[in-house]
Amino acid sequence: MPAYKAPLRDVRFLMNELLDYPAHFKKLANGELADADTVDMILEGVADICENVLSPLYQTGDDEGCHFDNGTVTTPKGYKEAYTQFIQGGWQGLSYPEQYGGQNLPMSLNLIKSEMMATANWSFTMYPGLSMGCMNTILRYGTEEQKNTYMPPLVDGSWAGTMCLTEPQCGTDLGQVKTRVEPNGDGSFKMFGTKIFISSGEHDLTDNIIHIVLARLPDAPKGTRGITLFIVPKFLVNADGTLGARNGVTCGSLEHKMGIKASATAVLNFDGATAYQIGPDHKGLECMFTFMNTARIGTAVQGVAHAELSFQGALPYAKDRISMRALSGKKNPDKVADAIIHHADVRRMLLTQKAVAEGGRAMIYHAAMLADKMTDGIVAGDEKTAEYWDDKLGFYTPILKGFLTEMGQECASLGVQVYGGHGYIKEWGMEQILRDSRISTLYEGTTGIQALDLLGRKVLLGSKGKIVRDYTTEIVKFCGRQARNKQMRRFIWDLTKVCAEWNTLTLRLMLMARKDRDIVSSAAVDYLMYSGYAMMAYTWAQMAAVAYDKLEKGGAEDAAFYTAKIQTAEFYFDRLLPRAGAHAEAMVTPSSVLTQMEIDSFALN
Amino acid sequence: MPAYKAPLRDVRFLMNELLDYPAHFKKLANGELADADTVDMILEGVADICENVLSPLYQTGDDEGCHFDNGTVTTPKGYKEAYTQFIQGGWQGLSYPEQYGGQNLPMSLNLIKSEMMATANWSFTMYPGLSMGCMNTILRYGTEEQKNTYMPPLVDGSWAGTMCLTEPQCGTDLGQVKTRVEPNGDGSFKMFGTKIFISSGEHDLTDNIIHIVLARLPDAPKGTRGITLFIVPKFLVNADGTLGARNGVTCGSLEHKMGIKASATAVLNFDGATAYQIGPDHKGLECMFTFMNTARIGTAVQGVAHAELSFQGALPYAKDRISMRALSGKKNPDKVADAIIHHADVRRMLLTQKAVAEGGRAMIYHAAMLADKMTDGIVAGDEKTAEYWDDKLGFYTPILKGFLTEMGQECASLGVQVYGGHGYIKEWGMEQILRDSRISTLYEGTTGIQALDLLGRKVLLGSKGKIVRDYTTEIVKFCGRQARNKQMRRFIWDLTKVCAEWNTLTLRLMLMARKDRDIVSSAAVDYLMYSGYAMMAYTWAQMAAVAYDKLEKGGAEDAAFYTAKIQTAEFYFDRLLPRAGAHAEAMVTPSSVLTQMEIDSFALN
Repeated sequence: MPAYKAPLRDVRFLMNELLDYPAHFKKLANGELADADTVDMILEGVADICENVLSPLYQTGDDEGCHFDNGTVTTPKGYKEAYTQFIQGGWQGLSYPEQYGGQNLPMSLNLIKSEMMATANWSFTMYPGLSMGCMNTILRYGTEEQKNTYMPPLVDGSWAGTMCLTEPQCGTDLGQVKTRVEPNGDGSFKMFGTKIFISSGEHDLTDNIIHIVLARLPDAPKGTRGITLFIVPKFLVNADGTLGARNGVTCGSLEHKMGIKASATAVLNFDGATAYQIGPDHKGLECMFTFMNTARIGTAVQGVAHAELSFQGALPYAKDRISMRALSGKKNPDKVADAIIHHADVRRMLLTQKAVAEGGRAMIYHAAMLADKMTDGIVAGDEKTAEYWDDKLGFYTPILKGFLTEMGQECASLGVQVYGGHGYIKEWGMEQILRDSRISTLYEGTTGIQALDLLGRKVLLGSKGKIVRDYTTEIVKFCGRQARNKQMRRFIWDLTKVCAEWNTLTLRLMLMARKDRDIVSSAAVDYLMYSGYAMMAYTWAQMAAVAYDKLEKGGAEDAAFYTAKIQTAEFYFDRLLPRAGAHAEAMVTPSSVLTQMEIDSFALN
Repeated sequence: MPAYKAPLRDVRFLMNELLDYPAHFKKLANGELADADTVDMILEGVADICENVLSPLYQTGDDEGCHFDNGTVTTPKGYKEAYTQFIQGGWQGLSYPEQYGGQNLPMSLNLIKSEMMATANWSFTMYPGLSMGCMNTILRYGTEEQKNTYMPPLVDGSWAGTMCLTEPQCGTDLGQVKTRVEPNGDGSFKMFGTKIFISSGEHDLTDNIIHIVLARLPDAPKGTRGITLFIVPKFLVNADGTLGARNGVTCGSLEHKMGIKASATAVLNFDGATAYQIGPDHKGLECMFTFMNTARIGTAVQGVAHAELSFQGALPYAKDRISMRALSGKKNPDKVADAIIHHADVRRMLLTQKAVAEGGRAMIYHAAMLADKMTDGIVAGDEKTAEYWDDKLGFYTPILKGFLTEMGQECASLGVQVYGGHGYIKEWGMEQILRDSRISTLYEGTTGIQALDLLGRKVLLGSKGKIVRDYTTEIVKFCGRQARNKQMRRFIWDLTKVCAEWNTLTLRLMLMARKDRDIVSSAAVDYLMYSGYAMMAYTWAQMAAVAYDKLEKGGAEDAAFYTAKIQTAEFYFDRLLPRAGAHAEAMVTPSSVLTQMEIDSFALN
């Protein structure tokens, strides 16, 4: 079973050498709290709980799963104790306001914390993760009373929260939501309906669970413009904050899933449950969209997490397992065969994992800085600034969520492959990572939905390609700055080509879309993947530039680390970036090649 | 749960329209047995048992799994009854000699039968499948007495067989095998050792199990040249053919696997088990290699099977599930949303599955004809002919096994993706197909091993590229024949480019290999995938040519079928073939980009 080791050297490389987090923090209103000592303490503390508390429960949680008994859900052995330890450390409130008991640190630190926790134990991490969606909603749209009632126990983690969107007939298409409320006359409502796929919908980790639910007011218009947000607590809350009666929301069953078995995925039945409106009438979906970017980056983390964990599992096996001789001659002459890490093809798999894990982590850490700036705007009540950074983030979000989760699955599968037949056996733990990863391209918007959001909404409709021109302009500037650095030449050359091609593809699709109305759906996933490969290429080139610089400035201490960064960048450009070309070619095919087939002709017998 | 429907229209298209099986059968010694009526009866009979007996047990078998109790293994509910029905139909002996109770039909029919069974229920199909490996070994290398003792009950299916190769310390590298024998003095041996990952190693379907085991004679040289084959029956067999004492081979445990849970994967302990040598001293591995091609094609079938079953599961859901509106306008105006099959991106996924399932099936049916010719040579005692066709087949084998199983996994994953979140839930059955498919690139030689076999052994060392030149010459001839067919032009143009590029890549790697000894391992998987995309392109072009021809000759009856074939070919060339270019670019990178990193630098903290 892969035991998680927090990659703190890489974390510090990203924060201090690539992205200059210290300077970034200084520009934030709450940045002075994130001084070097505090950040160090947080990193070490998170690493400790991840390595020693969460990681040991990863495989046992999968074996045991969650238990459902007549509406009651019990998490696997050790989860409650681990959760208690987690909240006693104050980890849940890291980036939430001091007035509700939090530590008010920048959101980015929360994301960095989440990435480590996610890698150590994704299923566990979903419980506090869902609570954050709930807290963000209440913070942004709640009344003072709602904030004062719900935030303190959510921030200290004694309560948890959920987001209840999906229903049996709809997930993506939330305009079809049927759950509805009736007024009680006292300002509260009675809710009726069924929600499915509710992560952390019921469990035994906390005293109360606060559901944020999408539902329809009695006079609601049809479709997406008739959905409102409601707070539905599992236990009603008395005026003094103590718990009152059990509310009419019950867990009908837990789903039996391919993976993330320690995460309770609930069917929730609302049978006249008391519900409190939060936010304006009929604007529930718009309110939800405010968090879309941050929520999706939270899921993008899963791609990095599974690539990293699978890499951490595969590497020791590749060093240990001996089989055949390397083609270039014996490497372990004292043994009957060479360790499989000496086979170039095994290294191809390991380096793919490493390139995705480290490249993806850098992409997320970069996006986290934008999220900080956006949050800074919100907290200052500066909606314009908040919107500016949210828009910026909006370009990265679908790429990170769509591309990194697809790549995370590939990497988890490669981890199985490195183990050969042993990868298929539960005991080794590699197949669990693959099963757990498979959800990541499905929830929080499938890859297809991310791709539509990117190409349709953000690139073509939203900016007529400007968003890509702006981003590639930034890359070209970087290339200009590196032009005299001979060592960087091969990266710069490839990046320049990618920038030109990316804009050409965008323009071409924009022109095609005038006549070919299905082209956006037809091209979207290839466009998303292309964008992901391009963005990761820029990221790796930046990391290589820093590494060359550090190597030049000497200090043999970390030379191996910087050299590995450069070598991984070379691997990425030589072996992974070429795939962008295949996506480029595929996406500009007219959509008719997909739409022309009669539905009845898909299968004829 | 996806209910299997045998794609008989496609089967007949391949046998009668694309490949001309009737003419092929006429050239075989046993071909006259395979007349049109017999073939029809077989296809209908296999379809019937697959649809009505095997398919209903697919999901229940996964849920229940195999039971292990103190050395005894019980297969899931219904498996024994299904197996009994299967053998009572005489299906196990379809292509085995009449003198042992078989029907002596061409091997290709057996493979065609296997593909349908594999799609309906892969785990079930492994039990009779493993027996075939055992039967082939005994038929080829057994003494008359061994054949007379073991073949009749294996052919009628009352006994089953296994192949015992893998040990804890080695799977690929069988030179490390430690299992050994000691002579009993009466010609038989005592065997000591442990074998793992033995499919069908223990179960309750048959009265006896005949293990074919790789082990070392007392005087055996080290490594691969010291391995001999042995027969180890679960129950010893008396002179009159009745069962005698329980032999000293016991099942120590069953593996807990990601999928194929209804297939019993056993740890077998040989504690002085009575063993009978089969075949010459120390030539066990060479003997095994005789079957490598057919065994690997048997596993390639799994790729097609999972692509097909996942497609059959995804298609009705895509027609049924409504979500959002198609970009080109409402398709189901009477409903609140359009069926998701109207979204181009969903069609991209379905067409990928369809292209791989039908293209892969055609590739396997073609290879099956080569296997027939090889078998014809063996049966006639014409080793030269047998070797000629085995060599021919040897080019297809690693491509089919490696490429089709990789593609099968992608298609199984796409089947989950079409279902969105529901794909992740066990109840729908789509995630099972993905879990079951994951083994296919691991056993019977990983993709990496197939790739080394193709590029290293067959293409570079074995033929200095001639094998590719010969194959592409065949394609170029096809292109020449189609040159005047305007409709075929776009396929022909792409195919011609691929042929040129394939040879160029081969030559380039051959030249690189002179100095870069690791290049074969470094390039192999990309070369394999390139070859797969190229071969499938040729296959789809051939199918399109037949379809155009049939359409021209009229007969509106099947027009929809032929049109769909052409449209799928177009999809393949536009959307999947471009990937070959990415593999081409990646493979010619010097191996140093993989080998340069110090082992300790893969992870630094």
